[in-house]
Amino acid sequence: LSPCFHCLQGEKNNGYEVLYQNMKYGLSATKELAEYFRERSNLEEYNSKLLTKLANKAGSSGGGTFSPLWIILKSTTERLSELHAQKVQKLTELVKNVTKYAEDLHKKHKSVKEEESGTQDAVQAMKESTAAVAKAKDTHNARLQEVEKARKDNSAKEIEKSEAKLRKHQDDYKALVEKHNIIKQEFEKKMTITCRRFQEMEEAHLKQMKEFLSSYMDIVQNNFDLVGQVHSDLKRQFLELTVDKLLEQFVLNKYTGLEKPGK
Amino acid sequence: LSPCFHCLQGEKNNGYEVLYQNMKYGLSATKELAEYFRERSNLEEYNSKLLTKLANKAGSSGGGTFSPLWIILKSTTERLSELHAQKVQKLTELVKNVTKYAEDLHKKHKSVKEEESGTQDAVQAMKESTAAVAKAKDTHNARLQEVEKARKDNSAKEIEKSEAKLRKHQDDYKALVEKHNIIKQEFEKKMTITCRRFQEMEEAHLKQMKEFLSSYMDIVQNNFDLVGQVHSDLKRQFLELTVDKLLEQFVLNKYTGLEKPGK
Repeated sequence: LSPCFHCLQGEKNNGYEVLYQNMKYGLSATKELAEYFRERSNLEEYNSKLLTKLANKAGSSGGGTFSPLWIILKSTTERLSELHAQKVQKLTELVKNVTKYAEDLHKKHKSVKEEESGTQDAVQAMKESTAAVAKAKDTHNARLQEVEKARKDNSAKEIEKSEAKLRKHQDDYKALVEKHNIIKQEFEKKMTITCRRFQEMEEAHLKQMKEFLSSYMDIVQNNFDLVGQVHSDLKRQFLELTVDKLLEQFVLNKYTGLEKPGK
Repeated sequence: LSPCFHCLQGEKNNGYEVLYQNMKYGLSATKELAEYFRERSNLEEYNSKLLTKLANKAGSSGGGTFSPLWIILKSTTERLSELHAQKVQKLTELVKNVTKYAEDLHKKHKSVKEEESGTQDAVQAMKESTAAVAKAKDTHNARLQEVEKARKDNSAKEIEKSEAKLRKHQDDYKALVEKHNIIKQEFEKKMTITCRRFQEMEEAHLKQMKEFLSSYMDIVQNNFDLVGQVHSDLKRQFLELTVDKLLEQFVLNKYTGLEKPGK
């Protein structure tokens, strides 16, 4: 069995703060993920624009035997630019979804804070009661030492006085522990429900976050596969354009007739 | 048999100019290819820098259950940045080689221009001679028409005069055509050698240009394969980090002991 959120009540009764803080981290992480996707998208957009600029320039120095290679370089550059633009479109959609989710999550967190006020009160009561019991225990130990000291001094008057003080405190101490047990039961009952709630919320949140990441990886992978296709098309076209073919195409383009020269 | 550069002598004896211009286009194409590679390299550098910036920011919003996913996103971003940087390094080397080749080509073209001055002279002589023959042919036709007109008018004096003019021009015309045949032979001899030279130069040049392009495509492909590896590593790590595992890691990190709460 895996450790669960309930285990986090831990010492000093800080479990609630830890879980509440983690819930808030969840919102920060969501916003940060949207921001990460947005910046990746901006980078794609920059690539797309610069490649279009490059494609427009490619082969502008004019004709010559190399021209057919410029044509395939130019169209490759255009296709890559287009793929970056497609990625921008898909990432923009994803960023929109993550941002929408972050807004909903923010609203949800606000209502959680209200609904969990009972548990927060129980946590506060538990902390105060725990502190009071610890203080009473210290006082109890001090009274015991006073009784022991009086017995060692063998002063009947002091013995009677210190034992009366000890008895009086023992009654208060006992009442405090009884009250503490009730507070503790209430705290444990509430925290059990709260921990379960936080865990369920966190599971749903992580599932959603993983879905966003999964969408992101799909966008990246599909785009990557299409880029691979562009590369292999370029390679094929490149191999088809042999030196002989380039020379032939050039001559055929420039060719003004089959007559022997010097007519 | 494919058409060759020799076919380009064509009409109007412009072959030399076409081949010489193409040679110069070859230099422009080389410089433009270096520039294309340089700009692709600049784009890679921009990607590398921006991804490093993004990697440094990733997951800075702090702890929480999502942290392990930030860690893998961060390291993925760092690895991608590193791959872009490696591409920059290899493209820079390639640009250096292309630029060096362009410089050598420029020097070669200068010496070609000097060494081909004989052919240029022959081309010029051929053009002038061709024009002179054409002009003499026109004059010959005009003289013939004058003779015909005189015969139609039946003027013995005019007939004799025009026939004398025709005979005198025929001698000049014949001498011009004989001279032209010598010039034409010289032109064809020189152009045959020059066309072969240009073609051999062009073949070597295109072979070199295709090697540069081939190196470029290898750099792109190798880098692409490594990026694919980064993607599949991310996917694997992503699948390993299930929601249960994320919750478990979080609890274990926050865990302050196994004691029952409220001690």
